[in-house]
Parts: sequence; structure tokens; C-alpha cells
Amino acid sequence: MQESQTTTSIPTTTAKKYVYTFGDGQAEGHAQLKNLLGGKGANLAEMSRIGLPVPPGFTVTTEVCTLYNQKGVEVGFAAIREEVEQGVATLETIMGTRFGDPGNPLLISVRSGARASMPGMMDTVLNLGLNDEVVEGLSRKTGDPRFAWDSYRRLVQMYGDVVMGLKAEKEEEDPFEIIIDAVKVERGIKDDRDLDVADLQMIVARFRTLILEKTGQAFPDDPWTQLWQAIFAVFESWNNSRAELYRKLNQIPAEWGTAVNVQAMVYGNLGNNSATGVAFTRNAATGEDLFHGEFLVNAQGEDVVAGIRTPQEVTLEGSRRWAKLTNVSEAERASKYPSLEEVMPAVFKELLIYETHLENHYRDMQDIEFTVQEGKLWILQTRNGKRTGAAMVKIAMDMLQQGMIDEETALLRVEPNRINELLHPVFNPAALARAQVIVRGLPASPGAASGQIVFFADDAEVQAAAGKATILVRQETSPEDLRGMNLAQGILTTKGGMTSHAAIVARGMGKCCVSGAGEVLVDYKKRSLSVGDVTLREGDWISLNGSTGEVYAGKIETSEAGLNEALDNLLTLADRHARLLVRANADTGEDAQAARVFGAQGIGLARTEHMFFHGDQILAVREMILADDTAGRVKALDKILPMQRKELEGLFAAMHDLPVTIRLLDPPLHEFLPHEVGNQQEMADILGVSLQEVQQKVMSLSEANPMLGHRGCRLGITFPEITAVQTRAILEAALNQKRRGIVVFPEIMVPLIGRSREFIQQEAIIRKTAEAVFADYGERLPYHVGTMIEVPRAALTADLIAAHAEFFSFGTNDLTQMTFGFSRDDIGHFLPVYLKEKIIDADPFTTIDENGVGRLVRDAVKKGRRVRPDIPLGACGEHGGDPVSIDFFHRAGLSYVSCSPFRVPIARLAAAQANIRNK
Amino acid sequence: MQESQTTTSIPTTTAKKYVYTFGDGQAEGHAQLKNLLGGKGANLAEMSRIGLPVPPGFTVTTEVCTLYNQKGVEVGFAAIREEVEQGVATLETIMGTRFGDPGNPLLISVRSGARASMPGMMDTVLNLGLNDEVVEGLSRKTGDPRFAWDSYRRLVQMYGDVVMGLKAEKEEEDPFEIIIDAVKVERGIKDDRDLDVADLQMIVARFRTLILEKTGQAFPDDPWTQLWQAIFAVFESWNNSRAELYRKLNQIPAEWGTAVNVQAMVYGNLGNNSATGVAFTRNAATGEDLFHGEFLVNAQGEDVVAGIRTPQEVTLEGSRRWAKLTNVSEAERASKYPSLEEVMPAVFKELLIYETHLENHYRDMQDIEFTVQEGKLWILQTRNGKRTGAAMVKIAMDMLQQGMIDEETALLRVEPNRINELLHPVFNPAALARAQVIVRGLPASPGAASGQIVFFADDAEVQAAAGKATILVRQETSPEDLRGMNLAQGILTTKGGMTSHAAIVARGMGKCCVSGAGEVLVDYKKRSLSVGDVTLREGDWISLNGSTGEVYAGKIETSEAGLNEALDNLLTLADRHARLLVRANADTGEDAQAARVFGAQGIGLARTEHMFFHGDQILAVREMILADDTAGRVKALDKILPMQRKELEGLFAAMHDLPVTIRLLDPPLHEFLPHEVGNQQEMADILGVSLQEVQQKVMSLSEANPMLGHRGCRLGITFPEITAVQTRAILEAALNQKRRGIVVFPEIMVPLIGRSREFIQQEAIIRKTAEAVFADYGERLPYHVGTMIEVPRAALTADLIAAHAEFFSFGTNDLTQMTFGFSRDDIGHFLPVYLKEKIIDADPFTTIDENGVGRLVRDAVKKGRRVRPDIPLGACGEHGGDPVSIDFFHRAGLSYVSCSPFRVPIARLAAAQANIRNK
Repeated sequence: MQESQTTTSIPTTTAKKYVYTFGDGQAEGHAQLKNLLGGKGANLAEMSRIGLPVPPGFTVTTEVCTLYNQKGVEVGFAAIREEVEQGVATLETIMGTRFGDPGNPLLISVRSGARASMPGMMDTVLNLGLNDEVVEGLSRKTGDPRFAWDSYRRLVQMYGDVVMGLKAEKEEEDPFEIIIDAVKVERGIKDDRDLDVADLQMIVARFRTLILEKTGQAFPDDPWTQLWQAIFAVFESWNNSRAELYRKLNQIPAEWGTAVNVQAMVYGNLGNNSATGVAFTRNAATGEDLFHGEFLVNAQGEDVVAGIRTPQEVTLEGSRRWAKLTNVSEAERASKYPSLEEVMPAVFKELLIYETHLENHYRDMQDIEFTVQEGKLWILQTRNGKRTGAAMVKIAMDMLQQGMIDEETALLRVEPNRINELLHPVFNPAALARAQVIVRGLPASPGAASGQIVFFADDAEVQAAAGKATILVRQETSPEDLRGMNLAQGILTTKGGMTSHAAIVARGMGKCCVSGAGEVLVDYKKRSLSVGDVTLREGDWISLNGSTGEVYAGKIETSEAGLNEALDNLLTLADRHARLLVRANADTGEDAQAARVFGAQGIGLARTEHMFFHGDQILAVREMILADDTAGRVKALDKILPMQRKELEGLFAAMHDLPVTIRLLDPPLHEFLPHEVGNQQEMADILGVSLQEVQQKVMSLSEANPMLGHRGCRLGITFPEITAVQTRAILEAALNQKRRGIVVFPEIMVPLIGRSREFIQQEAIIRKTAEAVFADYGERLPYHVGTMIEVPRAALTADLIAAHAEFFSFGTNDLTQMTFGFSRDDIGHFLPVYLKEKIIDADPFTTIDENGVGRLVRDAVKKGRRVRPDIPLGACGEHGGDPVSIDFFHRAGLSYVSCSPFRVPIARLAAAQANIRNK
Repeated sequence: MQESQTTTSIPTTTAKKYVYTFGDGQAEGHAQLKNLLGGKGANLAEMSRIGLPVPPGFTVTTEVCTLYNQKGVEVGFAAIREEVEQGVATLETIMGTRFGDPGNPLLISVRSGARASMPGMMDTVLNLGLNDEVVEGLSRKTGDPRFAWDSYRRLVQMYGDVVMGLKAEKEEEDPFEIIIDAVKVERGIKDDRDLDVADLQMIVARFRTLILEKTGQAFPDDPWTQLWQAIFAVFESWNNSRAELYRKLNQIPAEWGTAVNVQAMVYGNLGNNSATGVAFTRNAATGEDLFHGEFLVNAQGEDVVAGIRTPQEVTLEGSRRWAKLTNVSEAERASKYPSLEEVMPAVFKELLIYETHLENHYRDMQDIEFTVQEGKLWILQTRNGKRTGAAMVKIAMDMLQQGMIDEETALLRVEPNRINELLHPVFNPAALARAQVIVRGLPASPGAASGQIVFFADDAEVQAAAGKATILVRQETSPEDLRGMNLAQGILTTKGGMTSHAAIVARGMGKCCVSGAGEVLVDYKKRSLSVGDVTLREGDWISLNGSTGEVYAGKIETSEAGLNEALDNLLTLADRHARLLVRANADTGEDAQAARVFGAQGIGLARTEHMFFHGDQILAVREMILADDTAGRVKALDKILPMQRKELEGLFAAMHDLPVTIRLLDPPLHEFLPHEVGNQQEMADILGVSLQEVQQKVMSLSEANPMLGHRGCRLGITFPEITAVQTRAILEAALNQKRRGIVVFPEIMVPLIGRSREFIQQEAIIRKTAEAVFADYGERLPYHVGTMIEVPRAALTADLIAAHAEFFSFGTNDLTQMTFGFSRDDIGHFLPVYLKEKIIDADPFTTIDENGVGRLVRDAVKKGRRVRPDIPLGACGEHGGDPVSIDFFHRAGLSYVSCSPFRVPIARLAAAQANIRNK
């Protein structure tokens, strides 16, 4: 009684619509029905609905998947049987062919299509409808028996693989590939393309035998059995273990289900009135507003990709341009490589209509796949075209000007990271074609560079003085290498990740860097590197692509890139739409000037320790570290003071009228000490102590986990004189520049605060020193004292800290290290596996982890604002230049981000996008 | 108009009472008025109120401090003038002396007394009322001119120092001490006590000149001026910069203010009917219920401390015991060292009444300071007496039995940490007296140990085999040293803190350890250590006190300690009152058995990697690590499996009927690798590879920050075969023991989880392996899979993790490291300064940081319970054995704590106390 009264949530077969057809310029579905039709199904319906001639088909809805998996195959079958049969009948009508008719066969594809793309599920079965009889009919109809039998071979293989479950875990155990390899060996053939009709027939026969033996069931000759089993296999695959694990990891509900797309197949290889090709509504390389494309007569899509035949241009204009570039005469072009416009003018005309229609519909540059089957044009797919960074910028600004899109859309059209391509040198494409990739590392800092190998930073200096271009190759870099890094063309390291010392410094300098090329073995003694069989020595040429991580042996010419007008306009537009300000991380006057050119609105992070490596500062710094007592440290600090002051004057000058945040000494002191005996002896001589004493001090300062050791404000607390002298340098520099008429806003930042008491103690020293400086100068100036929030404990107790700190700057590098417990220098041992196994979606040092680290940031923002409502909040970790992270920082309510100068344009655009997206 | 209508919050002088008198067995205040009278004032009032003859006095309330500092000296003075004058008159009446009367002078002390003790404030001025005239009167009255002039000297010095502001920042710059030193030089004297009356007179004169020159004001001869200035100085000192900084650091509101205590001074050195002494209501060493004490006739309190004269016993019984122990004849005793009972029978009788009264009033053993001035007994102070751990336990259980206190009070009376003294060996006191402390390190693991020095763990093994007692001395220990550590009597390290490897392992073994003795230089090559001028070589005897951190040259006899009956009763009582269960961290069957003896209710943490060092496992482990591929690792793991299984069988056997939590491999693999060439060569031979290959592998596994590197579940994720084999070992061991009739509850714990996906992946491997094991055995058993919460990100996302994990165990060591960004191996560089400067109150690795780390724990508890309401929650870091942290864990709602076996009794008591305290 009870049961029969409840309204069942699973629809019965009578009323419900389970199949949505499309084709012939019409569709029952549309783009908004993604939940019901899956992504692929909704897209096919939309293309058909706007009048494109897509090959006809129908989509079995995701609801059927749920029905099938809950109620079983019989209920599922009953629910859709009529609609599917009706759907196939419609295909037959539109295509003028018949499913299973050897004389005029309709071939069909079946594809899964969930709401979100989901690996592990059954994907695709092509050429359904073929059997021993139909294949002969297809052979006769196309006059191409090899094509017919290869299509059949593929059907049996895919069907056996995904429908009948003969998928092997490892590629080398795939039973079908084992058969193909065996036949190739028997026939003495190396390339699949050399298999002839007889070979293919033998392979098909062996495939069928394999299936029967392994599964106890024969490959079905009946096309309808093929179709139904393929549909059911898609539903089954929704619940296989790989798909389940993926759903669990990605929190996709099992109830979503998957749709099934059934579509007629079309062929561009049915004779000379058939063709296949691809076209673009604008130029994907330059952005130029010019329709163009490539095609091949009597060919399949894969022939275009395979590159055996030279593709022809779609437009006559494009064809003539191509001929000119490749030195082909007009006569030869017209006879051997005519354009589609020439050989199929009607088809071309139709295509022109669609390309205009498509660009106007999608309001973006389209990449269109088409096939001409016996004179009839089919549009297989259209999508927003991939393009270079330069094209991205130009197309967006052109379309804005053409009134096709509004400002916000134009800004959203450009992927911020792709702006990199406009800011850094690139390899000359012709030269690149001849170059050999010897290894691939991490794309740590974009751009292209070529130079002669040096293994020591000092050598880079020597070679630079001699006017030579060098690439500095190190296992890893340290602050000692800074000068050499600055003088080299590029940096290659074998250890360390995207946020290693080398990577961060290189990005700051706008210098090309490939890091973590683990396969490269560096032998410092022999001054050589080896990777596989290749050995390169000091002085040999090597080239790096910091945007891709590729490393080449030899010299490759590069061409410089610079800001262009379209980009300038785009960024000016971006600033108008952004709420977040963008500052730069800069440690020198030159950096700061570069940052200003790129549009930085202040310095968010000046690392005083980076200045330590300029000139002779490092000697005084080492003297300070090696001192045994306060007096010794003060003596050394007195030497450092005027040098720091001078550096800071340069920063203030470049940032006239803008704020400059200066961080007090942060890294472990060990990083500044000499690690080579020569340098150690030099220090011993300067200090008048024995080499052994210097070595002992170096040893005593080494730490098990320096990242969690004696650094940041812990230095200023144990050695208060460091804080005092640095404060003095900052405020004297500021006052000196103020006297020269420069408007300065110094912000003194205490690093690595974890407790409010640490800040209170450091602030007391800073304020006391400031008063002393102001007394010396007889003049005051406003300044702020704030802190980094980079230790989890600081985020957790941000309210207590904000009671004293006048600003926060989130140091998300360290915050990520400590929140995850990931040392950024050591993640190379496991991060690749994490990414591969999808345990993590992105390197958390590149893109901020919103659920964990982000939670701390939000918490700290809330607590900080509660105590000090108008507290300025910034972010100055590497994430400050990452567009995804910038979106988060915008949502978290920060005031500004700070990044390396060369990422400022990227951040400006990302800040605008964040504001637009989150309105 | 407006102003006059508002009711002012600062009271006017008319109605308000500002001064509270005490003395003569009466008091206007009492113990509950701490906010008004300060801690000291409230206590003096209470003692007087219960009838003790405390020297009379009065307290000026904290409200006056606020009034003074807000309205100024005139208002303050006017407010209390009458009451203070009245108060002094009362003192004169009670004491029978007069303030400023040279013939019969009343001397007065002024002391500050805030609600909380606060460094940086003016503290004490004694002997107020003396001047050039009165000092002569005092001299005549006491017949002791030296005493009179020394009292005067002290007054001028203290007054000049704290009232007139001549305090020097550094001790060596103290102008008064400089004068004293000068006089000593002039007079050729070394000891202050050799200064005679003339010297003291000269010093007083120079002090007065100094004050006049430096301050422009003379030292006031008028006693009333002295008194008023001293009172005002206390109020002024509330706002000095040191006190302000302290308040800021400790969040003490400025409005609290401080009280001022003005009290008559009494003297025990006014002739043979005067005396001074100290008495205890019970024995502080053993807890025996016997009144006793010591005194000196015609002496001041400091004479008792100085130890120049032999103090006499208070009771006759005590005196006779003392004579027997020290071989003094009864005749000599009675003549030279008679008891107070004998020499001042009336005073003794009165004292007896007070001691009984005091113990009954405070219901605890009392430590009473008394002075007899010319036949009149004054009680200066009474407080709960300090006592040994053994006395603590005995007194608490005795008083419970005597009906003086209830069970909860008895449990709260014992400081859990002091139980240590009952569990570990102690030095024989007589032998200790002759020993020389050469250095002091950290008290890393309690107990006393003596042995011959070895510098290498292997040598400890060799010596142990020869029956020799050794102390292992290392810069730091590593897992390689485990076997040797177990065989040594004690461990001394020069690096590392309270939670270094050596410290943790030693505590787990219940073995004495002193860590971080930084002044000791170890020379492994020469096999010697040096500290200052002392050099000790291999084979020399050395002794360690792990409870104090003291290190002695030479051999010192130790006596064993064991559980006693009173402690047993206390702990049984504790279990009845506790809610938190106590488990043990144990890695071997022996550890587990010990833990059970100490009352552990299961194993909360078994570290599988510790088993790696037993027998030949380490070779197989190294083989696994050095393997190049999965196959190689599996081969080595197959050797490890039976060894781990056997170890685990021992654990399960010891914990019959109780849960055993086993953690999968956690530390960085690098820790297991051979670091010495000999061991490296051995591995090379076993693996059949070159030494160089082994060395390269060792190098490639080294990490910049191993604590944040490739460890924990990151190992199981990159090498899933490790997880699988460890799971197999655990469940096979459990099934084997189950077949033997042992009831097992295995809990498999995945370490270092930071994301739920990590756990999902590891759990899948564990479940799959479990099914395979159950299939092999044809038998199942229940088991749980859970995780450590030790990465901040895990705490932040505990809800996501709890959806999969069946239990949480907080690993607060790592959680503290990452939340603070403190490497526990490296904090030695800055923690001492942090503690000294009060930037941190306690080592966060010893006592959990409730505001930061605790917030993460609470957050994770809340989130975990929301998703899985009955999730078992434990804590297995070092904090699991720390009473303060246990109190927090109780409040945070955990189910159990787990600590090293020897701390289980401490934790059981602490758990009971936590429950009682937080009821």
C-alpha cells in the first residue's frame, strides 16, 4: 500500500523524453541542457540549432544512465528502444544511407559524454554497422578496399577493447596491438601504413578469434547488436573502478550519470568530390582579421595531421601568400596546390557563410573542422581557436573596436599568462626547427636564451666582461650566485622547482630559467654536464626555452620582444576595471624602474638581503655573521649601513610618489657564508682569524631544516642591532630623498612573525631607532611598520598581531610551505607523482591552495580587519603574479598584490579579470 | 553644566576606604580582595585574619595607584594622607615603638604588590625610618652598631636605587656597588662581611654624596618623607617603560594598578631572646607526618641561608635525630645545639599551636618563616611547603586517609611531572656531594646515569656485551644509533632540543638523557670531548642527571627507584577520576609490556620505522631504498615483511584486549641510509653495485628541509608497495595472534596527510591488501584505518578527511613545527633568547601552544566530529605526556593521549586532574 502510493523519482518509460535528436540544421536540445545531454551532446545540439550542417545524430540522456544502473539493462532497454530506433531511422533519412545495408551503408559512432570530462570511462567506438558483408559493400562504394578494411579493423579493435572488456592495464600488453605487431613481423613491415588489404583481413580475422577465445562470445555481426552493446557499455563504464575513484577524488556525484552520443559518420575520402580540412576565422599567430585554413582532397582528418601530403590553402589569397613564402610559382600552385575557393567554389562559398555566422554567434575567433563528402559540406566541429599571446591581445582589442564585444569581454579574452610571450625573447622559428631538444626541465622563468655554458657564477662575470653570452648551469643556485645570474643570458638548474631560488630570482630579473632538469648530471670538477649520451663542456653552446622548459644543445638565434600598442591599450583598460592594485617585488633601483615601466603602483617587497650581494656588502655581511659578540656585529653593520642606504635611495627615487615596502633581513644567515675554501680563507684573512675558526662558524650555523630555523624576525630578535641598523638605513635613505624633493612612503616590514610579541619587540626597536634618526635629521616623515603573514600561527592569531602591525603582507610561499609541510626545494621527489595521480590539481607554489592556505588567508583578513578595519593587505609571494591566485586574493578582499616586475602586466590584467568575474 | 552632572568614575576622597590595616590577629582585608589589595596584601591580611602574629602593617589599595597616575601626586596624597598616618600610628601602638624616635625606633618596609607579579616595577625598600640620628639609637638599642649601620647602608642604597632613580641598566654600572667595591679595594677586603662599622659609615656618607650629586636632591633624613616618597615611587614605577612593555606583552590592563604594602620590620638579632627560623609541618623529603624545623638564636633570616653557623633543630625529637645522624653526642647537642623546644619552650609551644592551626587551615603541608624579637614570636610568612615527588604523593595520600582532604584535592596535590622522581634512578646524595658539574644541558629524559664514554653506537654495543656501563656521547643521534642507545646507560648530545631524536627516543626507553649541551665540543676523530678546560676521552667515566640537565665528570653511584604503594593507590584513584584514556607510544613488545605495567590502555603510536633497526632489517630497508625500480623494492620488502610481522606479533601479544595503533613508514628515507663509508661499502657489496652508486643515491636522497620533504604518506604514495607490504605485515601478525587466542584491535595509521585525496589513495591500497590477506587466511578481523593530523592543512580540512578516516591522532610535534615554522632541531639558535625575553612563555614542543596550535586542534576536532560524530581522537606527540597539554587535550574533547611508557603514570594523573579542574 505504502509503496504504491509514493511517487517514484525514477521516471517511467511512458511520458519521459530520453533521446534528443540533432542534424539538418535543427535540434531538440541546446547549449543549456548540459546536465541532461552532457557537454558533448549539448554542444552538438547547439551547433545544429544555429543552422550548421553537422552530421546528424541523437543524444541518449544522462537520466537513462541512472535508470540503467539502478534498474538494470532490461528496464533501460525498454525505456529507449523506440526512441533510438526512431533516431537511427532519422539518420538514415538525412544521410540517404541505411544502417546495415551492404549496398549503401550508414556507419555510426558512439561516444560517452558526461557533464564533466571524466577519464576512465568508455570513450569512443567508431564505424559501428560494419561486418564481413557490409565491409565489402563499403569497399565497393568507395572504391578503396584498404580504407574499408582498415575501418573495419578499427571497429573490431575498439569494440573488443572497450565494449567487450579486453582493455589491457599496460599498453605493451594490449592483445590487439600484439596481433598487429605479430603480423608486421611476419610480413617484414615496419609502418602500419604499409599493411595491405590482405594483411588487414588477416588481422580482422585474428581479432575476431581473440575476442571469441577470451570472452566466450563472438564479435557481433548484427549492426543493431553492435549499437546497443556500445550504448550499454558507456553506461557500464560510468561505474567502473577507475571512474569511481576519479569521482571520489573529484567529488562528482554518481547520480550525475553520463549521456551517450550516437552520430552518423561522414568521410572526406570518398573520391575527388570529397575533402577534409580546418579553417580559422582570424589568424591564430598574429591575430590578423583574415579568414584562412587548410584542406586535402579525398582524405581523412588524420591525413591532414600525418603530414604526408602537403595541405592546400582554403582561400585563394592565402594560397598565393603561401606560394610566395615557399617559392612556388603561380602556375605550379594553381595546378598542384589550388585553393578550396578554386576547386570547390560552391562549398567554399557555403563555408564563408558559416565562418562569418560562427564568429558572430560565438563572438570569438573560431577553429572549424569540416569534411566534404561527395560534394556535401559537413561541419564536424567548431571551437574557439587556440592562438598565440600576441593574437589573443590583438583579436580582443580588434573585436572591441569592431563593436563585437564589450570591454569586460575583451579583458576576459586574454589569458594573462600568455602576455609573457609579448614580453620575453623567443627563438627564431627557422633556427628552432634545426635544434635538438636534449632534456626538458621546469619552465621556471619565461623567454628564450642561448649562450656558452659556465658552471660557476664567477665565470659568468668574467665571460660577461669579455662580452660573451653565457648560460649558468648549476645543481642549484644560492644567493652567492646572484651577480653571476644577473650577467648570464639564462640559468639552468638540475634541482629545485618552480619556486626554487634560481626560479624566483630569474623571474625577478626577467631572465630565462629552466629549473629542476633532474636528468642532467653536472660534474663541477670536470666542468661538464651530461644527459643521456650527450656531454657538454664549459664553453659549449646551449639554449633554453624558459616558457616550455626545453633545453637544446647548440646555439639558436632569438628575437627580442617588446610591449606593443595593443597590449598597452589592453593594460590601460585593465587598470580601469581592476580593484586590486599591483605592486612589484624589486630590490634595486633598476628593478624598480623596470617595474614602473610595466605599470607597478609601488614596491610591495624589497628584500634587503638581496642588496647584500651588491658590491662589497657581502664581505661586511659575512663579517657581521662571523662576529662573536654584539660589538663585532655593530662594527660590521656600520659598514653595511651606507651601502644599504644608497641602494634604498635608488628604490625611493624610482618610486617617487608611491609606497615602498622594505622587508628586514629574512633568510638564514648560513646562506650568506662562504662555502668554498677560497672564500673562507678570504674571510679568515679579513677577520684576522684562522681558516678553521671560519669553518667552525659556518658549520655551527648550518641547520637541519633552515626553512624552519633561525631566520626572519628571529634574527632581529636575537641580534636587535640588525633591526636597528636596517631601520636606520631605510629612514636615512627616505629622508635624504625627501630633501631632494622625492615623495617617499616607506613601509618597514618585519618578516616571519608568528606571535604578536615578536612584533611588539621588533616594533619597539624600529620606533626607537626612527626617533633617533629623526632627531639626527631634525626632521620627521611618516612611515608604517607592518608584517608578513607567512607562518600559519600568524594567520591564526592575526587579530592579536593587527593590534600592533599597521599593514599585513601575505607571504604565501612560506605559508604554503608550512601549511602543507612541503619544502619547495624538495617537492621534486613527490610532486610529479601527486600531479600524475591527481592527488593535487596544481603545484601549490604556483597557484594558491584555496581550501587550505586560502582558508588561513581569509581567516587572517577577517581577524585583521576586525581589529584594524582599514589595515592595508597585500600579497607578495610568488602567487602575487599568478592569475588564478590573483582571483582568489581579489575575492579575499586584499588591497594589492606584488610580483616580479616582468609579471606586473600579467597581474594588472588578472586583477581586472578578477574584478569583472566576481562582480 | 554637562561636566558637573556626570558621575565621575574615579572616587573622591571623602567616602572611599583606601587603606586596609592588618596585624595583632586582625585584618580589614582578606584573601578574596586580591584585585584591591594585590596578591601580597591579600595574603598578609588573610594570615592576620586567621590569628597569626604577623608584623602589623597596612595596604594602600590599587585604586590609589590609578588615582595617583590619573590625577597626580597632590590628589593622591590628599586621598590617603589621613589613613596612612592613622595606619602608622597603629603600628606604633602594636609594636610599642615610634617611627623616627631615635630612642625606640619603628622601622618600616614598603613593598609593591600588584594582582600579578610584574617585573620591572619598584619592588622593596627596607629599613625606612633610619637616618644619621636614628641609626645611633638602633645601634644602642641592639648593642650591634655594625647591624645598625649595615641596615642604614641598605636603606640608602635601596632608596637611591629605586626611589631616586639611580638604577643602572647593567649590574657592573651600579654606582652604589662601584662605591662598595672601591672601599673594599681601599681597605684590602674581599668579602662584604669584613666591612666594619667605620667602613659602613664611610660608604653611607659616599652614598649620600652620590645621590646629591646625581639627582640634585639630598637623601631625606625625615622618616615621613622617606615613607611618602617610597609609596609614590611604587605608583610611579607602575608606568615605567619596562613595566609597560611587560604589560603589553602579557596583556595586563594599565587600569589594574598596584597596591603598596607598608609593614613594621621585626628583627631576630636583638639579643639572645631573639631568634629566626623556618619550620615544616611535615617532612618535605619523605612526606612523613612530623613537625620539624631549624632556627638560629640572635640572627637574621639571611644568616640561616648563609650557612656560616650551624642551625639548630626546632623540636627536641628532631634535634636528637640530627645528633645521631651527625655523630654529635647528647651532651654536646644539649649544650651547643639545643632545640627551640628547650631554649624557648613558651615560644615553641605557641609555634606548635600555629603549625597545627596552619595545616588545618590551609589543609596542606606548611613552610613557616618565623622571627622571635625579644621573646615575642612573629610569623613572617607561611606557604605551602616545597617537597620531593615522593613526599608529594605520600602527603596527599596521608591527608586523604586522615580525612583532611577529599579525593579530588589529593589528586590535585601531586604535580604529575614530579612522579618522575619515583620512576627513575637518582644519584646517591652522598656521592653527589663530591661530584663536579662540568656543564649543563637540557633535561631531556629524567633519571641519573653513570658510565664510560663511548662516541659511537656500535661501541656501546661492544661494551655492553662486555658487561660495561656506557654513556653514549654524540653531537646528535640518528635512527642508526637506536641499538646502541638502548644498550647505553644514558645519552648526552650537544645539539638538538627537548624533542630532538635523542630526547624522544630516550624518553621512550625511559633512559636518562641530557641533550643540547652546546658547550661540549665532541671530536669524533680523537674520540674525546672537551668543555672549557676539561677534556674527557673514550672510556672515561661521566655521569648525567637527565632530570636537571647536569653533567658530571667521574662516576657517581645511583640508587634505583620503583613504584611504591602510595603511588599505586594514587594512580588507581586517578583512573577513577579521569575521562581521557592514556595509551603508550611503543615500538617493541618489551616497550609495550613496560607500558602495560605502567597502566597504558593501549598503544597509541607504534612507529614501524623504529623496528627497521632491529636485527638485520636495516639491511633490507637500505636495499629497498637503494632499489631503482618497483621490482627491486618489492624484492627487498619481501625480506622486511616477516621481520615486521614478528615485531608486531610481540606488540599485539603485550596488548591483548587493547587497541594497537600502527603508523606506516614516516621519516625521510635518507635517515635509514648508511652515512659512513664502511656501511656504504657493505651496502654496495650486498647490492652488487659500486660504492659510488651507493654514494650517489645517498646524495640524491638528501634534502634541503627533510622535515618538509619526502616522508610520511608521500612515501606510500610514491612507492605504493611500501604501504601494501606494511599493511600485510600488520594484518598477518594480527591474524596469527588471533589464532593463538589473543584479542587484537589493529588500527592502521597513515602519517602526514594534508589532503583527503592522499588518504583516499592510501586507504584504497590498505583495503585492497587487507582483502588479499583475509583471502589468504580464509579469515577476517575488524581493523580501522585512520590518520595523523599533523600538517596544518589537515587540521584546516579535517571535515574532508574525516569523511574517509576512521580515527584521528594529533601529531602535535609536527603540527607545532609547521604552525610555528620552528624546526625542533634548530630552535636552539633562538629559543633561549625567546624564553629570556618572554617572547614565548614555554618551549612549544614541551607544552602545547593553545592559542595557535591548539586552535588548529580544536578546529579539527569540531570539523571531524561534524562529519563523523563518534570518531576516536587521540594525541600522540610528545605533548601527550605533558600535564599542561593533557589539560588542553581534555578540554578539546579528545578521547585519549599517548605518550612514552615511562610517562604513562604522569599522564594518568594529569588526565584525572584535567577532568577535576574542568568540571
